[in-house]
Amino acid sequence: MPDLAESAPARGSARARRKARAENPEVAGPPYITRGVPPYEIMSEENLVRIEAMIDRILAETGLAFHDDPETLELWRKAGAGVEGDLVKFPPGMLREILASAPSEFTQHARNPANSVRIGGDHVVFAPAYGSPFVMEHGGDRRYGTIEDFRNFVKLGQSSPWLHHSGGTVCEPTDLPVNKRHLDMVLAHILHSDRAFMGSVTAEERAEDSIEMARLVFGAEFVDRNCVILGNVNVNSPLLWGGDATRVVRAYARANQAAVIVPFILGGAMGPVTTAGAIAQGVAETMAGCALTQLERKGAPVIFGNFLSSMSLRTGSPTFGTPEPAAGSLVVGQLARRLGLPLRCAGNFTTSKLPDAQAMVEGTMSMLSAVQCGANFILHSAGFLDGLLSMSYEKFVLDADLCGALHSYLQGVKVDDNQLAGDAFSEVRPGGHFFASSHTLANYLGAFWESRVADNDPYEKWVENGGLDAATRANQRWKQALADHEDPPIDQGIHDALVDFIARRKASMPDAAY
Amino acid sequence: MPDLAESAPARGSARARRKARAENPEVAGPPYITRGVPPYEIMSEENLVRIEAMIDRILAETGLAFHDDPETLELWRKAGAGVEGDLVKFPPGMLREILASAPSEFTQHARNPANSVRIGGDHVVFAPAYGSPFVMEHGGDRRYGTIEDFRNFVKLGQSSPWLHHSGGTVCEPTDLPVNKRHLDMVLAHILHSDRAFMGSVTAEERAEDSIEMARLVFGAEFVDRNCVILGNVNVNSPLLWGGDATRVVRAYARANQAAVIVPFILGGAMGPVTTAGAIAQGVAETMAGCALTQLERKGAPVIFGNFLSSMSLRTGSPTFGTPEPAAGSLVVGQLARRLGLPLRCAGNFTTSKLPDAQAMVEGTMSMLSAVQCGANFILHSAGFLDGLLSMSYEKFVLDADLCGALHSYLQGVKVDDNQLAGDAFSEVRPGGHFFASSHTLANYLGAFWESRVADNDPYEKWVENGGLDAATRANQRWKQALADHEDPPIDQGIHDALVDFIARRKASMPDAAY
Repeated sequence: MPDLAESAPARGSARARRKARAENPEVAGPPYITRGVPPYEIMSEENLVRIEAMIDRILAETGLAFHDDPETLELWRKAGAGVEGDLVKFPPGMLREILASAPSEFTQHARNPANSVRIGGDHVVFAPAYGSPFVMEHGGDRRYGTIEDFRNFVKLGQSSPWLHHSGGTVCEPTDLPVNKRHLDMVLAHILHSDRAFMGSVTAEERAEDSIEMARLVFGAEFVDRNCVILGNVNVNSPLLWGGDATRVVRAYARANQAAVIVPFILGGAMGPVTTAGAIAQGVAETMAGCALTQLERKGAPVIFGNFLSSMSLRTGSPTFGTPEPAAGSLVVGQLARRLGLPLRCAGNFTTSKLPDAQAMVEGTMSMLSAVQCGANFILHSAGFLDGLLSMSYEKFVLDADLCGALHSYLQGVKVDDNQLAGDAFSEVRPGGHFFASSHTLANYLGAFWESRVADNDPYEKWVENGGLDAATRANQRWKQALADHEDPPIDQGIHDALVDFIARRKASMPDAAY
Repeated sequence: MPDLAESAPARGSARARRKARAENPEVAGPPYITRGVPPYEIMSEENLVRIEAMIDRILAETGLAFHDDPETLELWRKAGAGVEGDLVKFPPGMLREILASAPSEFTQHARNPANSVRIGGDHVVFAPAYGSPFVMEHGGDRRYGTIEDFRNFVKLGQSSPWLHHSGGTVCEPTDLPVNKRHLDMVLAHILHSDRAFMGSVTAEERAEDSIEMARLVFGAEFVDRNCVILGNVNVNSPLLWGGDATRVVRAYARANQAAVIVPFILGGAMGPVTTAGAIAQGVAETMAGCALTQLERKGAPVIFGNFLSSMSLRTGSPTFGTPEPAAGSLVVGQLARRLGLPLRCAGNFTTSKLPDAQAMVEGTMSMLSAVQCGANFILHSAGFLDGLLSMSYEKFVLDADLCGALHSYLQGVKVDDNQLAGDAFSEVRPGGHFFASSHTLANYLGAFWESRVADNDPYEKWVENGGLDAATRANQRWKQALADHEDPPIDQGIHDALVDFIARRKASMPDAAY
């Protein structure tokens, strides 16, 4: 296991860590990654400047529409934008100037302080997939998600040393009323995990409920000064912000909490079919959303998000985990760094309906683009199948394992006297063997990250052990992880206050299906 | 034969190309890739210099042993190395100076000139996996490879638009005598494919047979002036060159053909368990092998190879497709570019025994490192399972499809007025739809690469179509591709000369099993 914990704060006490490591070598993940390798920069300065010019042109000439939120229009008017009806046009440079007040990195606090995450800069945070209405288990059996599934995925996230964040809507609990399910979701994150989490974004009052629950955990004053909850808000691409969305963005900013601003562009539908144009549009949309947070509360944390996809020529369906969005994400990373904002980009995407070879060739290409583009907060790191529509138990395990591999990958190749192995070359002669050398003995522990899902046995032993495929092993692992799960301890007073708050909120309104 | 590959011509006549494209949109692959994105450079100048200093120290102080080849020792002595017994020590700078005469890029000619490949520089050539004794089909059923399997894999390679090179020992034809099987292997490449290929390296006379067969195809004079065959030769790591290997290296160089020089380092066994040390050793070994080609024939083409792997702590088994070799390969690429030699590095590696999720998460991580590190000749691009021991029909199809995705990935994001889509933003207003815009209609063809193995249908349609996994679809595809295969035409005189040569060679010696 890489010695990531050295530079990043270790989780829990040294004694608890030793005990955990002895019982299960997996339980020693760091709270987040501090990368040792630079992002992958594929685009020339000249072409970046051309895309930025197109972004400025879209903002100034095409403009963005803001529906059903007069306060937002008023904020733009005061800030110097041109407002005609609900169409807003931004003079060149205006948004960049406003964005200068947003922090380039910030801490999102977890209720277990050892699990607080640093978002921005050289840091990388993995969070589970978000938003699927369906759930799959045992391969491709699909059904609607429930609150029990939701709790299971929170527990599975908490059990993985390679995820850092509990996420948000890990699946839609479709068995609960739409206007109340956010209360149960936020509670599940707080009770079954002690990591940082996300709140509701489907309506302003649900966002405020989520933030209020965070206040019960962290204290109102602490929340006003620190980020403890994120809200992931989508632009209604192309170039349209709905009033529900802008009110939610402003609710998070007003509370000094971080909105994640994300366009949703299926190339050829909600944006141009050409990648450079889709990037320009998405960046324009996101810049406006991020700037809005600063008008609502100067200095509030905000995350610059992006999302790219492609389309099947044969069927017109959206496709995911394909090469064009992977390359496009690398460019988005370059552009985001020039804005100095924390980045959310890509994730583990696939169109496959099974946790099979297609799922992981697409997922790995997509996930590598996320870490290589320099994304700081990687939502959708684990669980998606079926073109974002389904959360799969088996895929969750496979993806979390890939997140583990990326911990080691992002450390790169270390260079010091020990790593260069000069002593080994003095000891082992040409044609010799390093296995018993003192350098190998001193270094083999921790030299290589080891998957808990991969089968690395010789063929004969693999056959002897049943000849299982990776999805079957993943099925065994999530069932075991759920059986082993214990909720992290929580203060009884906080627990009761949350339960009481939820009961009052639920009693205050009838169930609704929207 | 004219060097048609200079301008990367399309395959076959325009008419044949149009016909092929109409019948099957897959048949339009380019003869090789010219990358539009730079390699991924993860290591600082300072650390690269430290590794280079360790390489020089290994070469000067530890030295390399050269067994059973007095002529090689004599070449080193004349060139100024210190030779004591069979241990050779290289003064700092000596090998770099010798390597200056090796070409930084060259053309390997194919018998169909449209398929000639350019190796080096910004070019990327995909070749199938090499050397497995076993073959798998229908998932994980493993058996020894045969010449029929060999021919099948050559045909499957030829059928894929996303591979560029027919490769070499695509599997071991274990049903043929060891001392004669090279004749049937080279013949299979020539008859069932019209792409560039590789010859035997198991003994000097087998290398010479292979080259002689190439002379029958291309003409002796042409072969003396142009590269038409590659030989992939392994160092006996650590730091030992066997006489069989150096004689084969010299045989290829003597004929002005390109040896591919490759260390085989399993970290902790044939090299240090630390990646920086393993890289230093591998580069030292490869530099010596490449330099030897220049002493044999100054200016002969040669490919600088590298191979990194890791080890399972739990079992001591080698592991493949893991993160440390992926990161290490990126560093090897940086070092190779400083030497100015064409690079072979990484490939599609996995320890999985099935074409499943494990196979493709490992394979994709490994294969992305190959293209991102700037490798020019990517051997092992398609087919491996089982830690290099097995060639899988289904995995071959899945991997070749990934090679297709990488064609698009390596183009990066293009930037011009059309790609920036300025006209589209004038046409489509905020909240509108791009689907029917004139920009989308003008650009959707070719906007996105499309997999022929992935299922991108909606869930319901996927169920209706049988709910197949990717491995099952791959099984259907390779069977269809073999059924559809037709050998490319060959001159009857060349055909007869090859058959006659093989008959004479086979008659000249008894069968042997070594």
